Amino acid sequence: MEYLYLPSMTKKFRVGIIGGTAFTSRELVALLLKHPQVEIAWLSSTSQAGTPISSIFPQWTGALGPWEVLRSLEDVKNDPIDVVFSCLPHAASAENCAHFIGKAKIIDLSADFRLSDTDLYQKTYDHVHPMPSVLKDAVYGLADLYAEKIAKASIVGNPGCYPTSILLPLLPLIAEGYVAGQVIVDSKSGVSGAGRTPTATTHYNNANESVAAYKTGRTHRHVAEIEEQASEVAGKKFPVVFSPHLMPMDRGILSSLYIPIKPGLTLKDIEDVYGRVYANSPFVFVVKHYPSTKEVAYTNRCHFKLQLMAEQNLLLVFSVIDNLIKGASGQAMQNMNLVLGLPPSMGFV
Amino acid sequence: MEYLYLPSMTKKFRVGIIGGTAFTSRELVALLLKHPQVEIAWLSSTSQAGTPISSIFPQWTGALGPWEVLRSLEDVKNDPIDVVFSCLPHAASAENCAHFIGKAKIIDLSADFRLSDTDLYQKTYDHVHPMPSVLKDAVYGLADLYAEKIAKASIVGNPGCYPTSILLPLLPLIAEGYVAGQVIVDSKSGVSGAGRTPTATTHYNNANESVAAYKTGRTHRHVAEIEEQASEVAGKKFPVVFSPHLMPMDRGILSSLYIPIKPGLTLKDIEDVYGRVYANSPFVFVVKHYPSTKEVAYTNRCHFKLQLMAEQNLLLVFSVIDNLIKGASGQAMQNMNLVLGLPPSMGFV
Amino acid sequence: MEYLYLPSMTKKFRVGIIGGTAFTSRELVALLLKHPQVEIAWLSSTSQAGTPISSIFPQWTGALGPWEVLRSLEDVKNDPIDVVFSCLPHAASAENCAHFIGKAKIIDLSADFRLSDTDLYQKTYDHVHPMPSVLKDAVYGLADLYAEKIAKASIVGNPGCYPTSILLPLLPLIAEGYVAGQVIVDSKSGVSGAGRTPTATTHYNNANESVAAYKTGRTHRHVAEIEEQASEVAGKKFPVVFSPHLMPMDRGILSSLYIPIKPGLTLKDIEDVYGRVYANSPFVFVVKHYPSTKEVAYTNRCHFKLQLMAEQNLLLVFSVIDNLIKGASGQAMQNMNLVLGLPPSMGFV
Amino acid sequence: MEYLYLPSMTKKFRVGIIGGTAFTSRELVALLLKHPQVEIAWLSSTSQAGTPISSIFPQWTGALGPWEVLRSLEDVKNDPIDVVFSCLPHAASAENCAHFIGKAKIIDLSADFRLSDTDLYQKTYDHVHPMPSVLKDAVYGLADLYAEKIAKASIVGNPGCYPTSILLPLLPLIAEGYVAGQVIVDSKSGVSGAGRTPTATTHYNNANESVAAYKTGRTHRHVAEIEEQASEVAGKKFPVVFSPHLMPMDRGILSSLYIPIKPGLTLKDIEDVYGRVYANSPFVFVVKHYPSTKEVAYTNRCHFKLQLMAEQNLLLVFSVIDNLIKGASGQAMQNMNLVLGLPPSMGFV
Repeated sequence: MEYLYLPSMTKKFRVGIIGGTAFTSRELVALLLKHPQVEIAWLSSTSQAGTPISSIFPQWTGALGPWEVLRSLEDVKNDPIDVVFSCLPHAASAENCAHFIGKAKIIDLSADFRLSDTDLYQKTYDHVHPMPSVLKDAVYGLADLYAEKIAKASIVGNPGCYPTSILLPLLPLIAEGYVAGQVIVDSKSGVSGAGRTPTATTHYNNANESVAAYKTGRTHRHVAEIEEQASEVAGKKFPVVFSPHLMPMDRGILSSLYIPIKPGLTLKDIEDVYGRVYANSPFVFVVKHYPSTKEVAYTNRCHFKLQLMAEQNLLLVFSVIDNLIKGASGQAMQNMNLVLGLPPSMGFV
Repeated sequence: MEYLYLPSMTKKFRVGIIGGTAFTSRELVALLLKHPQVEIAWLSSTSQAGTPISSIFPQWTGALGPWEVLRSLEDVKNDPIDVVFSCLPHAASAENCAHFIGKAKIIDLSADFRLSDTDLYQKTYDHVHPMPSVLKDAVYGLADLYAEKIAKASIVGNPGCYPTSILLPLLPLIAEGYVAGQVIVDSKSGVSGAGRTPTATTHYNNANESVAAYKTGRTHRHVAEIEEQASEVAGKKFPVVFSPHLMPMDRGILSSLYIPIKPGLTLKDIEDVYGRVYANSPFVFVVKHYPSTKEVAYTNRCHFKLQLMAEQNLLLVFSVIDNLIKGASGQAMQNMNLVLGLPPSMGFV
Repeated sequence: MEYLYLPSMTKKFRVGIIGGTAFTSRELVALLLKHPQVEIAWLSSTSQAGTPISSIFPQWTGALGPWEVLRSLEDVKNDPIDVVFSCLPHAASAENCAHFIGKAKIIDLSADFRLSDTDLYQKTYDHVHPMPSVLKDAVYGLADLYAEKIAKASIVGNPGCYPTSILLPLLPLIAEGYVAGQVIVDSKSGVSGAGRTPTATTHYNNANESVAAYKTGRTHRHVAEIEEQASEVAGKKFPVVFSPHLMPMDRGILSSLYIPIKPGLTLKDIEDVYGRVYANSPFVFVVKHYPSTKEVAYTNRCHFKLQLMAEQNLLLVFSVIDNLIKGASGQAMQNMNLVLGLPPSMGFV
Repeated sequence: MEYLYLPSMTKKFRVGIIGGTAFTSRELVALLLKHPQVEIAWLSSTSQAGTPISSIFPQWTGALGPWEVLRSLEDVKNDPIDVVFSCLPHAASAENCAHFIGKAKIIDLSADFRLSDTDLYQKTYDHVHPMPSVLKDAVYGLADLYAEKIAKASIVGNPGCYPTSILLPLLPLIAEGYVAGQVIVDSKSGVSGAGRTPTATTHYNNANESVAAYKTGRTHRHVAEIEEQASEVAGKKFPVVFSPHLMPMDRGILSSLYIPIKPGLTLKDIEDVYGRVYANSPFVFVVKHYPSTKEVAYTNRCHFKLQLMAEQNLLLVFSVIDNLIKGASGQAMQNMNLVLGLPPSMGFV
């Protein structure tokens, strides 16, 4: 029995993260550290340049590499780099990504490159789009459906958490022409979706042991993103009813979809669609049990269950993801694999 | 300044609880102890007669009264008593209530007196109804809508937790003829709804930090109860789509209702209905904010918010209760007030 | 069978709350609403006068009484009132209580009237004591031990939450001369102890699924209060080692005490002490099981268990309270009962 | 820019897990899947042979490899294998490990190979040791302190979760002769420490929103393990006072140690000890902040903070680990690295 432990013999890709103190940055670093073909070159932060990341996220106490001290954007923007992730909030994100356009692949976790319609962006985010000229180069990074386009993109608009949980089951049915009426989505999200800023909403004593709806109907910003994607596939306006709810848990999204379908369809018809679309997916699985957010926590997976109510011509879909992984940083790394020509699942398991 | 502290000068009503070791019994005792006009005479338990209740619920350590040692049904069934609550599971409940029929008012927290149709009962609970002969004397105890009928009843079938959160906002709209299509209800419940028995589902490490649907569509037992009530008011079959979800919290239910309504209705039209029905209610309130389960925890209240999506002819209602209080023991005490001729809110605040 | 429902025939005491938007005010209102002999006259708030309390605490939606709109201190300070509770933070509390001295009994839930030594106060709270002249009239409101003194007091300094959980088991042993060495206290508290202000510490995603110590050794402000009380009973300096920890839960404190005791003492010797001191207490109970914070949640109780390690001459005590009730608003209402000459347990069960 | 993605060119070690349905097995699989030099050959289960692991742990839905169907011990015991992990309970574990002695390295996560004294084992576990003859070959797997011995061992007794959190900070101080009196340890653990079996203790509604002590003093089974290790280093009997507490969270242990130390020692003296012992450790870090269990969740780390109370000659240590990783499966994989001659941190980041 002979074994040989070889260090990796390949040059690694260099990646940087702007907005390095966000929850999504923390998750991204945790993932990237386990990726065999990339190395983190730097994290940048406008407000906390010079601070060791371990003073913000003490899980990285100890010398982990040159990226451990947060750097200013000024300081890093001319470093040679392969991929830049942005974990900044919208508007600030596009502005700061500008420095890297043409020099590196850009994967933006904010909303700035998700919508192709700048008017819709302005209406939704109450802000003139900061970089309309490069928007046409951006690709919507729903990685399990748009892998080919993403692979060629220079800018990837990484999808929102709710849209990811909803569009993965919904778009294939729209594409197939199976959807026959008003879709209603009732989503449940953990608190991390609300970000790191302390507010009354994120106060433990308000969030714990409680559940409440918020921004329901068509008032949540993710509605624009969901509807733009759905409409493009449908070839016509596709309004959704969307009710997000805040759950007393750290992470995870469960989206319960109520989809009117064309009369006469069987469960097998529907399963066949997913069978074709996600046959080789390492991440998207149709399951027989009711999936829990916990079973996909800390993974890049989307599990969903189907229930056909034939008498009502209604399809129920229960779709779970980890909002911070599949709904943000995990999908971002999957997109990174795509733009770098690596296998999509590399580094995940 | 002269003050006088007088002990109560009235004789108190005597109440007993069968199934004294259930969660709902615990909650009921906590409520009854604060009620000025009743005294707990006894708690009974088949399996634990002779055990002090404080060894099961240590919050009652110390001498609280003669009820503190659990008694057998045999031992209590001939005691003069004004009201008997049953916290037993279905089937066992009706059988044991039988001993008190004609001697006391009965408020049954199980499902045994909720359905008027014995075939539906048998189909739903997989059990022949144990007391079909007395079923006609039972009244459905939705206390904020059916107070008059309840006041005259000898047996009250205390509603299920989900149905209470759903029917309070739904029935007035059906009665008004406002509902115009398939109603979808997406409910979220705390774990106490699953009872005291340890199972994989109620294991902390499965339930915590997770959310999942279960028994969706029309498969949950509460569907029978919701549909029977709704159909009676509608004057025709009224099927609902009902998706319960298990939340990582102790108590509370949020039901999100998606109700197709007749075109042309305004929000004011709808608010007027509730204004009439719940004008003098001490417990049911239409609120402007998104209500949280926490705001009604440990209360007998139901708060709900309305959102009219005019373009979709869809009314969204977000309704919250405490499943153990308004959804069980609190409504049971409210029903007790009604059958005893006391003000419905007595003992609550 | 004849029953008569009589309204209360006695005049009720009028109570007011300054600092009406604090967690402790919310809890106090919930308790006072169930008290048969008092009525809430007003809640005051400097920053939110004119606001209905239901917009802050929606559990009070609906007309509850004239106190439902927050009033300014200016507006209420000349109202005739029997008892004023202060839920303001320290320093502000004593300053605002000043308006009521001589006109009403004052029960202060801040730290301003807990310490008799103004130098210690200044050192501990980094602030000159705002009302040293009235401090001599204040009594430390540890209600289960000092009922007689409290009954005669015009100002009651309501104890801190940690000190209550610790002093109830500790002081009787010190008084008896049983303590023989350095006492170590390891306390665990729910997040509500940190107040309503959103901070990084109270952010759900930091507090949830986590436990950490803070301000350990002798650095927490409650050490001054614990040591002053213990020293007074001991007749000499009595330093303690005190380690508070933050738990992922809303409410509750468990204090684990490690008390070196005089050699030769038996468990019976120790139980006898508590038997004498708490024989008639409606709230303090020595229990045989390991008490949980949950069993005393929403109650005014303190349960504690003893374990004698004879070989080590060490007594272990595990003491639980609800930090917001027994550790704040419940003990405040108990103190109110005492200063008004009512039975201490009135209104609690 | 040229990059080359190379598949691993080395043969991988084959590992198997007996007791494949335990929490610790689930965690171990998650870790091993990311290890670059091992492949999971099989999971075995007596009761569930033939069941796909994804029906128990749905996070592994999808074809992951030949290990995905649980196998019987009979079926696997003659397969060539490099390392066998046992996740069985004590007694059953040693009996089943017997099949692999001499054929593979064994890493036992139960208590069967932790104690060297069979009498102590029998007294502690109420069971005659099932394999006393091989006990002498077993090494206590406290991987950060005993790496050299472990590297040569054929059987590793993987330490308990509480002992790991306690011994890592304690043993170096004992070895240095710094400990001068009775050590008290107050530990707080998440619910996963209680295992997968549903019981009243692990019922969500009992565990949530609550904290309680259990098996305190010297009654918890881990006391034997802690004292045996401490005594061996001290060269004399070294009794500890140990109070475990159950926390409302999934995972994590915080041990608060109260260590009387020799007069005159400075904080620097103590830091120097740890500086020497853990200088090159990738997992054990002395930190300046109060560490939280959350910062080490899902990692193989132990973080601890020191506070010297010079006046009391008392050292406070606050030590955190993830009970399922560092306290079980992570340390097991670290031990696997040691017995296979791989770098100890391989596969972790």
